[in-house]
Amino acid sequence: MTDERKDVTAPDPGVVTQEALALKRTDRSEAAFSEWKTTNGDVTEALRAALVELHPAEFADEFEQLSLEARASLVERLPEAITPDVLAEMEADVVEDVLPLLSTASLVDAIGELDNDDATQIVEEMEDAQREEVLAGLQAADRAELIDALSFEEDEVGRLMQREFVAASLEWTVGDAIDHMRRTGDALPDIFFNIYIVDGDLRPQGYVPLSALMREGRGVKLADIMTLKLVPIGDHMDKEEAAFLFEQYDLISAPVVNDDGVIVGMMTVDDIIDIIQDENAEDMLALAGVSEATASDTVGEVVRSRAPWLFLNLLTAILASLVIAQFGEAIEKVVALAILMPIVASMGGNAGTQALTVAVRQLSERGLTSKTAWRSVRREAGAALVIGVVFAVLLAAIAYVWFGRADLAGVIFLAMILNHLAAGVAGIAVPLGLKRVGADPAVASSVFVTTVTDVIGFLAFLGLAAVMLL
Amino acid sequence: MTDERKDVTAPDPGVVTQEALALKRTDRSEAAFSEWKTTNGDVTEALRAALVELHPAEFADEFEQLSLEARASLVERLPEAITPDVLAEMEADVVEDVLPLLSTASLVDAIGELDNDDATQIVEEMEDAQREEVLAGLQAADRAELIDALSFEEDEVGRLMQREFVAASLEWTVGDAIDHMRRTGDALPDIFFNIYIVDGDLRPQGYVPLSALMREGRGVKLADIMTLKLVPIGDHMDKEEAAFLFEQYDLISAPVVNDDGVIVGMMTVDDIIDIIQDENAEDMLALAGVSEATASDTVGEVVRSRAPWLFLNLLTAILASLVIAQFGEAIEKVVALAILMPIVASMGGNAGTQALTVAVRQLSERGLTSKTAWRSVRREAGAALVIGVVFAVLLAAIAYVWFGRADLAGVIFLAMILNHLAAGVAGIAVPLGLKRVGADPAVASSVFVTTVTDVIGFLAFLGLAAVMLL
Repeated sequence: MTDERKDVTAPDPGVVTQEALALKRTDRSEAAFSEWKTTNGDVTEALRAALVELHPAEFADEFEQLSLEARASLVERLPEAITPDVLAEMEADVVEDVLPLLSTASLVDAIGELDNDDATQIVEEMEDAQREEVLAGLQAADRAELIDALSFEEDEVGRLMQREFVAASLEWTVGDAIDHMRRTGDALPDIFFNIYIVDGDLRPQGYVPLSALMREGRGVKLADIMTLKLVPIGDHMDKEEAAFLFEQYDLISAPVVNDDGVIVGMMTVDDIIDIIQDENAEDMLALAGVSEATASDTVGEVVRSRAPWLFLNLLTAILASLVIAQFGEAIEKVVALAILMPIVASMGGNAGTQALTVAVRQLSERGLTSKTAWRSVRREAGAALVIGVVFAVLLAAIAYVWFGRADLAGVIFLAMILNHLAAGVAGIAVPLGLKRVGADPAVASSVFVTTVTDVIGFLAFLGLAAVMLL
Repeated sequence: MTDERKDVTAPDPGVVTQEALALKRTDRSEAAFSEWKTTNGDVTEALRAALVELHPAEFADEFEQLSLEARASLVERLPEAITPDVLAEMEADVVEDVLPLLSTASLVDAIGELDNDDATQIVEEMEDAQREEVLAGLQAADRAELIDALSFEEDEVGRLMQREFVAASLEWTVGDAIDHMRRTGDALPDIFFNIYIVDGDLRPQGYVPLSALMREGRGVKLADIMTLKLVPIGDHMDKEEAAFLFEQYDLISAPVVNDDGVIVGMMTVDDIIDIIQDENAEDMLALAGVSEATASDTVGEVVRSRAPWLFLNLLTAILASLVIAQFGEAIEKVVALAILMPIVASMGGNAGTQALTVAVRQLSERGLTSKTAWRSVRREAGAALVIGVVFAVLLAAIAYVWFGRADLAGVIFLAMILNHLAAGVAGIAVPLGLKRVGADPAVASSVFVTTVTDVIGFLAFLGLAAVMLL
């Protein structure tokens, strides 16, 4: 939960010229940061005001673009610009860089001010020594919440959930609930959408959206207007599973319960968006063989995140070359084989990548499940056969026109069909297989699939040629 | 906005065993649909009850898995199972298939019952004749809203926004607002989170979250507690731009304004999740050369969505083969060239895909902008040089050991570095170039990049070989 609900600076409302809305904001923060760079890091009084007034999300965005040295210089000269909300908006790796530059006192204030879920994300980036100091400085209740959050695994809901929520007894009326909230005042969560109705053991039995509460008179019993059916989230549930439930049931917020079914927190949809975006980025990058990427990566980080997969690719490319080497004699006699063989491999590789990407996407959207897997495999095989035959005819015709040899055309025709079938089946079987053994279906699956299509492509084409042409 | 807030059937609350939560639900709907299939399409009384009681999202999921014939049979025998909420949960292409099976009367009821944004998504799938009939059957106010929504472009906010929202005058107190909502009752949006405070011209000036309203006494003036800074969305803004603003500013809901700055609707974060997921799926599939994919695609649809890109790939593969054909003589003399050349092309292709995927992802997350483009290009070039040199050394050593020729090792060393540089630069320049000319950076960019790496890879390796080895 963030800042937007507090009174931070954002664009002026009033008359707006449609598309310019987003630009206006970005321009202001760009201007402030550009000016700061021209002053050689010196912070004038006017500039100080401009920087401190930026929206935290914009400040964080511009700050992330700075070099390590420039960040350190800005933090040193203008520590008050790194507000709690700005910290909450920064990418985790930038937070990690900035934390050592901040005083314990300012961190204690920031952590105390933020909602529990944002605070956890900052504390988990701290070095052990700093974390101890900051925890020691906090009020007992805040400290206990953070320690509880950190006791969960990084991907579990318990690490991310908000520990502040509003619950009401089954016996209460609308008036009781409103009075309770007015009394509680500032101790309420910054923002919430539902009141969870709990039994005597604090087990959620239903909920009343605030917007429904607004429609009813004070005397109405909550139990009479509550929505009975909840989608509770377990505190040890994987965050991606929780995100899926939010999507599947179009949830705005959900109670989090422990193993005994007792409410211990809540998740809200704005936090879910970040989980979904991270999951999507992971899948997309993993398919391309990149372990991670942020806008602030250095050359060294880029190399480290990509080299391992390129090394694996080198090994599989050598495997493909070993296959080609078996047919050196054939290539010497019919050089057209060397000219045409990359086409077979390339078409198979691309068809395999298409099937693979669709499968990975549908696995993450739960459109492809163990129940529907068999149907998907048949569909991929069917499509591969159709596509294989179409392009086999096309390529055979091209080969015949180019080299004037019907036997060569026949060889490439058969090799294309075989390789497209291999591509289609590997494209869906590899991610399903990885999923079944509990691995991420996006990671390393491209390597497997292109190895299959390279090896089968070269083997089918050159092998058939050795038999049929020589 | 959906069903979850209404009293539809979902899992029992109470004691839950963590991970089993999601499964329990899915099991129930799977069981009901399996049973229906075993009855050969006949619907018994018990089965009817079981099917009608399923959560709309689950019913829609299972329904989407059925064949066209099975869907038609189920709709015919159990039209009451296709509730408005079930229709709202279905994928657009399934809705399109189902609409002709439903009566105009039931559609009028469904459209009238749904919130405006869900209703629009169903009406836009109708054939013209059916749409006319259904619109004619609606109440005048509902009809006017739908016609207004349909007057916007498909990707504009005006097509998707909710036209029901709660606005309050700058003069009102907390008590006035609560009384207004109690009076309005059922005419309020099904669910909302903020009250927008408007001036006399209905221009939003600030907002009060319902949760903040709850904290305050009846006498407090809304103008005194409202959050001043809004992030208004324009009704002609592209939906992906709106989704970006929601992410950037962690919004829960935002007022939608027309060109005069007058409030005309609102967007809420749960609708944004669908936009984000669609955008992500589009990017990922486009990178792999798939125009679209849903779990219910037929073999024909699969072929149509993939063949065009494979055809383009065939043309570029032939281009690469034409390059190889220039060096037929060299290959006949040194067959090791044919054996090693796919490695150079494959390494370049993969390095290019890595750079491309990172660039596309960062463009969509706005981490890569025209301002930071130059830095990203330099970083990619730097990383490509480092990676190119590392793998060039490795591959040269392998080539030397394998074929015992130092000159061959030298050729592959230089070719690898050249191709990695080409890969790195093309990987970032192609998506940036597409973006600059207003095209989608994900679509077709893989073709461009792999064409560059194939052509440069073969040309550098075989060209250098022709000069240095012969």
